[in-house]
Amino acid sequence: MRAEQSTPDPEPPHVVIIGGGFGGLNCAQGLRGAKARVTIVDERNFHLFQPLLYQVATAALSPADIAMPIRKILWRRRNVKVVLGRVEAIDRAARLVHLAGDERPLRYDHLVVATGARHSYFGNDAWEPFAPGLKTIEAALAIRRRVLVAFERAETAETPEERRRLLTFVVIGGGPTGVEMAGAIAELARLELAEEFRDFDARDARVMLVEAGPLILPSFPPPLSEKARRSLEHLGVEVLTGTKVKTCDADGIVASGRRLEARTLVWAAGVAASGAADWLGAEADRAGRVRVAPDLSLPGDPKVFVIGDTALVLGQDGKPVPGIAPAAKQEGAYVAKLLERRLGGRPPPPPFRYHHAGDLATIGRSSAVMDFGRIKLSGLPAWLLWGGVHIFFLIGFRNRVIVLLGWLWSYFTGERGARLITGTGQEL
Amino acid sequence: MRAEQSTPDPEPPHVVIIGGGFGGLNCAQGLRGAKARVTIVDERNFHLFQPLLYQVATAALSPADIAMPIRKILWRRRNVKVVLGRVEAIDRAARLVHLAGDERPLRYDHLVVATGARHSYFGNDAWEPFAPGLKTIEAALAIRRRVLVAFERAETAETPEERRRLLTFVVIGGGPTGVEMAGAIAELARLELAEEFRDFDARDARVMLVEAGPLILPSFPPPLSEKARRSLEHLGVEVLTGTKVKTCDADGIVASGRRLEARTLVWAAGVAASGAADWLGAEADRAGRVRVAPDLSLPGDPKVFVIGDTALVLGQDGKPVPGIAPAAKQEGAYVAKLLERRLGGRPPPPPFRYHHAGDLATIGRSSAVMDFGRIKLSGLPAWLLWGGVHIFFLIGFRNRVIVLLGWLWSYFTGERGARLITGTGQEL
Repeated sequence: MRAEQSTPDPEPPHVVIIGGGFGGLNCAQGLRGAKARVTIVDERNFHLFQPLLYQVATAALSPADIAMPIRKILWRRRNVKVVLGRVEAIDRAARLVHLAGDERPLRYDHLVVATGARHSYFGNDAWEPFAPGLKTIEAALAIRRRVLVAFERAETAETPEERRRLLTFVVIGGGPTGVEMAGAIAELARLELAEEFRDFDARDARVMLVEAGPLILPSFPPPLSEKARRSLEHLGVEVLTGTKVKTCDADGIVASGRRLEARTLVWAAGVAASGAADWLGAEADRAGRVRVAPDLSLPGDPKVFVIGDTALVLGQDGKPVPGIAPAAKQEGAYVAKLLERRLGGRPPPPPFRYHHAGDLATIGRSSAVMDFGRIKLSGLPAWLLWGGVHIFFLIGFRNRVIVLLGWLWSYFTGERGARLITGTGQEL
Repeated sequence: MRAEQSTPDPEPPHVVIIGGGFGGLNCAQGLRGAKARVTIVDERNFHLFQPLLYQVATAALSPADIAMPIRKILWRRRNVKVVLGRVEAIDRAARLVHLAGDERPLRYDHLVVATGARHSYFGNDAWEPFAPGLKTIEAALAIRRRVLVAFERAETAETPEERRRLLTFVVIGGGPTGVEMAGAIAELARLELAEEFRDFDARDARVMLVEAGPLILPSFPPPLSEKARRSLEHLGVEVLTGTKVKTCDADGIVASGRRLEARTLVWAAGVAASGAADWLGAEADRAGRVRVAPDLSLPGDPKVFVIGDTALVLGQDGKPVPGIAPAAKQEGAYVAKLLERRLGGRPPPPPFRYHHAGDLATIGRSSAVMDFGRIKLSGLPAWLLWGGVHIFFLIGFRNRVIVLLGWLWSYFTGERGARLITGTGQEL
């Protein structure tokens, strides 16, 4: 009998990928032709399309519209196993990944760490309860709850001062996330909620965007930054640049010596890498990013790679590659190609080169700014392109249809489809 | 000047409605022509379409697809104010409704209590952590999390026994909710998850429906109950009738002397009215329902009405009106008509008469049973009618489109669109 005569193949090498974000997922998908068993571990069962998370926080989309089970994305890849688990430690000497609550560590031959970033308060973690950041679905739903509860509480406020505080929203940080959040909160007040309250006009809500630097969207060319500012102001957002936050508390912020009373704060001012540098015992920069070799491996340990927001990757110009989805995807694909060659006994590819396609940020439902190097756009054309790009990169046909229909609906009616106060919080 | 010469109108009487479910909402809408100020109070900001909540619990729909802000539904009614608040007490002598965290009670001239029902463990509240019921969005998401986590944990189970326990799902209670839940979990395993795991086949999951009585769907004629049973068995559900639950714990249930090991239990066995009888100091039956007069007012207090699942209303046949959405809607509309007449100085309408349109329950994605008196249907025709009826009664055009598209998509692909493990629970 054939089956008895053949000697069994040696088990193929085991590639463990930690993290199912843009970097990890693209690495797993890129390994389709590799002679490897692949295990992808994430503490969530879904890949999250982070660029649209602010739309969950502002009641426009449901969490499921921008998330897709990792298992479902990869089910056809028979050499890939998906594990729901939380990494507790990595033992590089023994090549083991330890998962919380599981006695049996994963033994790897090659390891890819792609655990992303969380928001950072630059040493002021005590601000977090007052000014939540926007990194997870739960955080987005908590922000949605705060924003919506503030309007509800304003309807029953006992004093005009209290109502004013409830109707003031401060977004801290003038990068793309802060700009998108501020624009979306302003539209929520001016379009969706406008006529719904009896004791005040929701259009009177104040939305402030606070940025320490001299310009919002500092990664864009100044003329586009200025256009974004004007678009925000057109929506009614007060843009306070050169305004550095000194304190956040339950009643607002102190910034550049001035007290701003507000019941709802949103933190969009900074991120730090996840704790992977600690697990790996690796050198990290001040933002917690692991310094990697030109092939994205850990210096001195060619079996371990770090990619995405967890890694400090230097571009051809010597500057750090930005912490955005396209960069993580390129890095994931690069490591997959490298491993495929290594496992096939072929020479390694040339060092990783980052290709920067462009920068995009949206302001409300009909304006955006876009910097594609020689091509710069703003206003409606940029917004249409922004929408097209995001629909295109969203994973799953069903999600694309639902998000597109939701946007079309909102565009023509001003309505937002997910205005629910759910979960429990101290606010209610 | 006219405005100065006219004496101001006396403020119109104040109708306070507690609860924005089917009863309260229909009452508020029915008061559109009444000379009244109306305040509707709910502890949630949204009306929930409860008949489809099981689809949230089984990952087919997102919460926002079956919910709509009460404020948004009623914003055109200029005489209606919506208040987000939790009722703590009612003072019938002083005609006050006290809200939690608010010093200023609502003073009513007429009060409508429509606070619905919650699930009941018949004195065994200790079972709740092991066998959650399905009444709120949060509970539905918790059940979704448990069901999905059970499959994930089965992929990394250490022993075959543990895997078997993880892949066993017990739904307790053979009414419409239990039948719908059991069918949906079975389809989730057999269609959506079938190919996605590497260490087991999700189609091997066991789904059991446990019912104490001799038949499932006891409110239906026995031939339809039998058809429902066969449809469930066709989906792979084991239907255990005549099986009374003695204990629920973290490892399963004991029922009719037999131990069933299961990591996931769902409670669909019974409901009890909300605590309104206590607030009102009113007489209640064993299920907590307030006994009402033929005009749905509280006996001895014609200013107070109790409707929906909170009330024990007797039909023309002397039997209690069932706790279903159409009954609550009819009662809400009746009280609105009565109040409109009363406030207009006209004689009251004749006593409330309940019109029973029919009973409906669905089993999976292409079968249902339907009892419309002379017309009885089962199988695909009943399922199509079930779908049409539910889309029709869902509130909001956008929700109708999204739910309809979601169902069509699922029908042809077997996919479910909201397979996220969110929130935090002890399970992970």
